[in-house]
Amino acid sequence: MQPTSVRPKVIIVGGGFAGIAAAKGLAGAPVDVLLIDRLNHSLFQPLLYQVATSALGPSHIAQPIRHILRRAKNVSVHWDEVTGIDRSARRIHTLSGQQLPFDFLVIATGATHSYFGRDDWAKHAPGLKSIEDAFVLRGRILGAFERAEMQPIGPERDAQLEFVIVGAGPTGVELAGALAELARHSLARDFRSVSSHCAKIKLVEAGPRILPNFNEKLAKAAHRSLEQLGVDILTGSRVTEIEAGRVRLGDREVASETVIWAAGVKASPAARWLDVEPDQVGRVPVDKHLRIAEDQRIFVIGDTAAHRPEGSERPLPGVAPVAKQMGSHVAKVIKATVLGRPDPAPFRYRQWGNLATIGRNKAIADFGRVRFSGFPAWAIWSLVHVALLSGTLSRASVVLSWVWSYLTWERGARIILSAAEPAQEKETNA
Amino acid sequence: MQPTSVRPKVIIVGGGFAGIAAAKGLAGAPVDVLLIDRLNHSLFQPLLYQVATSALGPSHIAQPIRHILRRAKNVSVHWDEVTGIDRSARRIHTLSGQQLPFDFLVIATGATHSYFGRDDWAKHAPGLKSIEDAFVLRGRILGAFERAEMQPIGPERDAQLEFVIVGAGPTGVELAGALAELARHSLARDFRSVSSHCAKIKLVEAGPRILPNFNEKLAKAAHRSLEQLGVDILTGSRVTEIEAGRVRLGDREVASETVIWAAGVKASPAARWLDVEPDQVGRVPVDKHLRIAEDQRIFVIGDTAAHRPEGSERPLPGVAPVAKQMGSHVAKVIKATVLGRPDPAPFRYRQWGNLATIGRNKAIADFGRVRFSGFPAWAIWSLVHVALLSGTLSRASVVLSWVWSYLTWERGARIILSAAEPAQEKETNA
Repeated sequence: MQPTSVRPKVIIVGGGFAGIAAAKGLAGAPVDVLLIDRLNHSLFQPLLYQVATSALGPSHIAQPIRHILRRAKNVSVHWDEVTGIDRSARRIHTLSGQQLPFDFLVIATGATHSYFGRDDWAKHAPGLKSIEDAFVLRGRILGAFERAEMQPIGPERDAQLEFVIVGAGPTGVELAGALAELARHSLARDFRSVSSHCAKIKLVEAGPRILPNFNEKLAKAAHRSLEQLGVDILTGSRVTEIEAGRVRLGDREVASETVIWAAGVKASPAARWLDVEPDQVGRVPVDKHLRIAEDQRIFVIGDTAAHRPEGSERPLPGVAPVAKQMGSHVAKVIKATVLGRPDPAPFRYRQWGNLATIGRNKAIADFGRVRFSGFPAWAIWSLVHVALLSGTLSRASVVLSWVWSYLTWERGARIILSAAEPAQEKETNA
Repeated sequence: MQPTSVRPKVIIVGGGFAGIAAAKGLAGAPVDVLLIDRLNHSLFQPLLYQVATSALGPSHIAQPIRHILRRAKNVSVHWDEVTGIDRSARRIHTLSGQQLPFDFLVIATGATHSYFGRDDWAKHAPGLKSIEDAFVLRGRILGAFERAEMQPIGPERDAQLEFVIVGAGPTGVELAGALAELARHSLARDFRSVSSHCAKIKLVEAGPRILPNFNEKLAKAAHRSLEQLGVDILTGSRVTEIEAGRVRLGDREVASETVIWAAGVKASPAARWLDVEPDQVGRVPVDKHLRIAEDQRIFVIGDTAAHRPEGSERPLPGVAPVAKQMGSHVAKVIKATVLGRPDPAPFRYRQWGNLATIGRNKAIADFGRVRFSGFPAWAIWSLVHVALLSGTLSRASVVLSWVWSYLTWERGARIILSAAEPAQEKETNA
């Protein structure tokens, strides 16, 4: 971003799947790209639940953004945070005090947890979006077993070993399966008073079935697999209150020291920055080229965007493949504009398949015409996720950890990170 | 720890090298052992500097204590914190509110940083004792480069790229070498405005030479190796003041945003708990069997103990091999007492060798009669440290990371963990 440059300036805000795909797509193009993120790393969110359940460490699934983009010499990376966007002056303002001009702006700031207006639940039921979130969950999960080990048999100990996961989308299902395997197999040998069947795991879903975005037959297979692992699935159950140590589901109350939120997300505050009207979950409506109606050179992509494909009633879901394809598309549109070429064909999401894993040898795969579950789906899930990871070392390390866990039933990353007092009840133990 | 048990109760406080060795030594003995630690994991401290400099992740060098001791069925582990010891009632008090009786007590609570009475320096110059410390240092080191990337050339940017390490013992030397390689090789390609020679690293030592505990010729070899890496070594320099952004060395002032403390340690508060007179760095004097003079069934081992071998003027240093051997010895003494056998021979430290690494292919090795430096020492250092790690998965993962770094000059764990604002000056960024 040299001030003397006459090349168009593209600012990308956010280094997740969408922002990275946009930056990669613009590598070598006659533009100066600046990617800004408030983290120094890009996260492979589909495997974050494995950090929370001690199967993987943070560096397995997180890579420095500037490292991912090191070969794109026209791309700079700033570790900074956007505080506002001045659309008319075409500048963004950042926490470090900079005002950065842009010709094209790409917003890819993702989503965060939504507690449906009950933000006070957040401290009792943390969600899973960042490495720090994963460490908090890991500390709560492992800490619950540690505290139970010291307690006499009784209701307090039972509440330590009662885990409630709210929301049965892919994250909730994968967490429930991983937690069940952790409790049943990986921890049992190491404890003296806590045994493998002490832990109770409840998966709570307001809707009529788990995995609503999957084919019904596959979701049933996943349901059976979870039950085999000992997970208690409560569909049609709406959480009405969460307090320290208890969850209320209508007229039923569950005493639980570890409640995990996997129920709702809302988009980042991009709509407010851009001064446009968001949809009901905070997403910014975008046109066929993922631009906002107010400005043809401002794009919103990934979980922050509400893009409704032609003929569809619902916007595309906030998943990694959508985000990646949106990033690539925006790069094509910007290149075409800069080079004076006609716009590419409108954005169209190509869905290759839909995968979710429940546990060892248990997964479901939906490739449209072909649907299957069990070991073949699990093998494909494993291969696909390793292949999608960024970096050879990460791939090799994840394979090593998974093979080890598969052979030994152990989890390699059972470290509780906390400077706080271990034995006391804590609201936060990150 | 069943209340009906008539077997003698041994409480070990601390799960570092010393405490783990004591617990392992008591595995299968006719005693009930309870090991208490305020962390759930045991740390391989000799490689902690590699976590701080992004070469390794936390789970490479930390293992759950209860996992290490899973096969010792007479050993229980509590994640709890000792708040006091009642010597006459033979009970310890813990943060979780428990009062635990003991027949034998082993204190192995280690050491912490000492700022020689200037605890206000701690927030400007963090030290390196825990995983959390390593994350703080990593965040400061990587964050300094990130901030420099955004700043114009000038004194503020220079201060970001000025690193000062206080203390040239093994930790300071290993940190300086790793930091130099990180700056010179691993980061350079990923930045646009920061280049490989921008960073300045100063190693400050009050004494006349680096590595005072090593043979002088070897220390000179290490000195040369560090200088080859571009480290500026200031011996005979005493730090007289540390403030935000600056360090004073007598009448010289260095503007540095990243100061790292590797200068002094003091023992944990065991002496206060036991109501005995500590030595000048807080260690508890112990006899030939590592017992306190006041009670033949209370032992203090590891960095917390001041054990002066017969004929020596100085107590044994606070290093891992001493701690391990002390732990094994105490287990032997307790077993002999319980079984009514005569005491073993008094504790005698057997030093096998002394190793320190400076960087790629650069290390020093002192085996008494044989001393050497360079690649052979580095190869031995690497093999020994892999062999000493706990757990097959950790060993394989560390080998994988090291081989990868050796071949590519890259560091696999460059994740800044921080919930705080990235671009602002921060006092703490853990």
